[in-house]
Amino acid sequence: MKYNFGAGPGILPQEVLLEASQGVLDFNKSGLSILEISHRSTDFEAVLAEAISLVKELLEVPEGYQVLFLQGGASAQFSMVPFNLLDESNKAAYLDTGVWASKAIKESKLFGETVVVASSKATNYNTIPEGYTIPSDAAYFHITSNNTIYGTELLTYPESPVPMVADMSSDMFSHAVDVSKFGIIYAGAQKNMGPAGTTLIIIREDILGKLSRKIPSMLDYKAHIDGGSMYNTPPVFAIYVSMLTLRWLKKKGGVNAIEKENIDKSSRLYTEIDRNPLFKGSADSKYRSRMNVCFVTHDPNHEKPFLDFVKTKGIIGLKGHRSAGGFRASIYNALPVSSVEVLISAMKEFETLQK
Amino acid sequence: MKYNFGAGPGILPQEVLLEASQGVLDFNKSGLSILEISHRSTDFEAVLAEAISLVKELLEVPEGYQVLFLQGGASAQFSMVPFNLLDESNKAAYLDTGVWASKAIKESKLFGETVVVASSKATNYNTIPEGYTIPSDAAYFHITSNNTIYGTELLTYPESPVPMVADMSSDMFSHAVDVSKFGIIYAGAQKNMGPAGTTLIIIREDILGKLSRKIPSMLDYKAHIDGGSMYNTPPVFAIYVSMLTLRWLKKKGGVNAIEKENIDKSSRLYTEIDRNPLFKGSADSKYRSRMNVCFVTHDPNHEKPFLDFVKTKGIIGLKGHRSAGGFRASIYNALPVSSVEVLISAMKEFETLQK
Repeated sequence: MKYNFGAGPGILPQEVLLEASQGVLDFNKSGLSILEISHRSTDFEAVLAEAISLVKELLEVPEGYQVLFLQGGASAQFSMVPFNLLDESNKAAYLDTGVWASKAIKESKLFGETVVVASSKATNYNTIPEGYTIPSDAAYFHITSNNTIYGTELLTYPESPVPMVADMSSDMFSHAVDVSKFGIIYAGAQKNMGPAGTTLIIIREDILGKLSRKIPSMLDYKAHIDGGSMYNTPPVFAIYVSMLTLRWLKKKGGVNAIEKENIDKSSRLYTEIDRNPLFKGSADSKYRSRMNVCFVTHDPNHEKPFLDFVKTKGIIGLKGHRSAGGFRASIYNALPVSSVEVLISAMKEFETLQK
Repeated sequence: MKYNFGAGPGILPQEVLLEASQGVLDFNKSGLSILEISHRSTDFEAVLAEAISLVKELLEVPEGYQVLFLQGGASAQFSMVPFNLLDESNKAAYLDTGVWASKAIKESKLFGETVVVASSKATNYNTIPEGYTIPSDAAYFHITSNNTIYGTELLTYPESPVPMVADMSSDMFSHAVDVSKFGIIYAGAQKNMGPAGTTLIIIREDILGKLSRKIPSMLDYKAHIDGGSMYNTPPVFAIYVSMLTLRWLKKKGGVNAIEKENIDKSSRLYTEIDRNPLFKGSADSKYRSRMNVCFVTHDPNHEKPFLDFVKTKGIIGLKGHRSAGGFRASIYNALPVSSVEVLISAMKEFETLQK
């Protein structure tokens, strides 16, 4: 038995994997694999329609928004957002909360004036900045809702005078979101939604069409909206598995039910980190992520022995990102609470062994 | 039993589907799905390395070229190519042989002067133009090697005074290619290489770095080369299945062996089209594609009855593209010759029924 705490591509529900595996052999009893059917077939059009409809239902997406499943990951959105919204006539505002935010900022600077309203870089991004001002003449204000590397998360969003754009790659579908606060939400699938290979975009249509810049079709949100998320051949399998995962989430009770589970799982783990004298949490406790629980050993000499020890328990993917060190327990939607219990037991057992 | 003549995403080898299905449940006996492992894991790094190495081996890729597996399909390459190679200081040349070529031309025009050296649009792209001149001061000359919609294929390539760039989406790996003739070859996976969701790029490094334009990272070939085809999270599953398909191709004897099969399959089908008094081929016989065999009925009233008839035989995906009409038998690498025989028998039987 393996307990997969990997940061992503991350764990997916077992029943989704079973159905996806079957779909690779024979999709919908069609006699064909999901990998070899036309994206224009009624069978796949139904998959895409259901995926879009599940996103709208699960997040209560208001009127005026479009849902797209594109390729390229969040990194592609880093340039697609300013390509569509920023030019010499305006400016963009960004909150710098980690490596991914700073990559988004770097791309934005290619397109126009980019204001970084605040950064927590000085403390290696262990917290989320506060007390900044968002320029009211910015085209948009960009945030990263969860910072996988450092284990920080924005659980309440700033009040912004301009449309917010959020990279929600690592906490999308882990809790309820008031979509109406955002101009664009984007998220790579490979944490809570599906396998690597597709990116969800939720976009308020009226923020588009304000620039005179000519945009290459594949980078133009409008082209993808007009094409019904099939401007060109979509990543069929990644969308299919995302649809299955969203179905699973709906069956579990949706984002409110999963949010309760995520609060429960993360609270248990943080409680043990705070109790156990060998460990301490890495992130500012005010912004502790419910998705990526980052912690270290007080004694650096305990780090490797602990990693070796958990390996014997079947726990994998616990090593922290190289730029943060220590441990990172990614406890995405599909990770059962029993896996968290296994990790907590291992921490207690390791504590006993050090005595 | 289904005989899948779909134009793409197209048929894949059964043994690849079996192994991919298993990998979704348990990859390499790791206890984890290929969908939930880190792209930085040694297991996946081995998959990517093998995929790249198989491309190099199968196509005898010379020194100086890089192999990338990106996202976005060939459509993304339509803008990525000029983004990296074309600006106000130079020009690009294109051969217009169909809808996909004309889409590539449209994107190129956003970036700089775009010369269309010749077009077969006037005859609804039923042939490939000849007798044109490629400007010797162009940055590159772009061709589409196979035109799925119209069933035309360039089986010998033009002599070009400038680097050639080729969209080989629909005939990549169906025959040997002298890669040294090209600056860039790109191909969406979903015909002969794997499922939709990844795009193969073979690029000669020395054609890069000649423009002063700033290129967004995700559109910059250099960034992907520097990242070893993992600038960001790659489409893990699509690359995995592509690797399995390339392994299968190698086991079959590689591109020379498959080329013989493809010549055999397409010749049989064209022979029947030319013999059978009910049908005629759509494309100029000089440029008949070995991948997409397009044909029509002499009597338009036979079209629907024939489609209904073949359906009773388990033949699917035979309807021609809406812009060309008639029938299109896509006979990609993975389609067995026995399926072609089933189609030929159905054509003969239909002929008898009309007497």
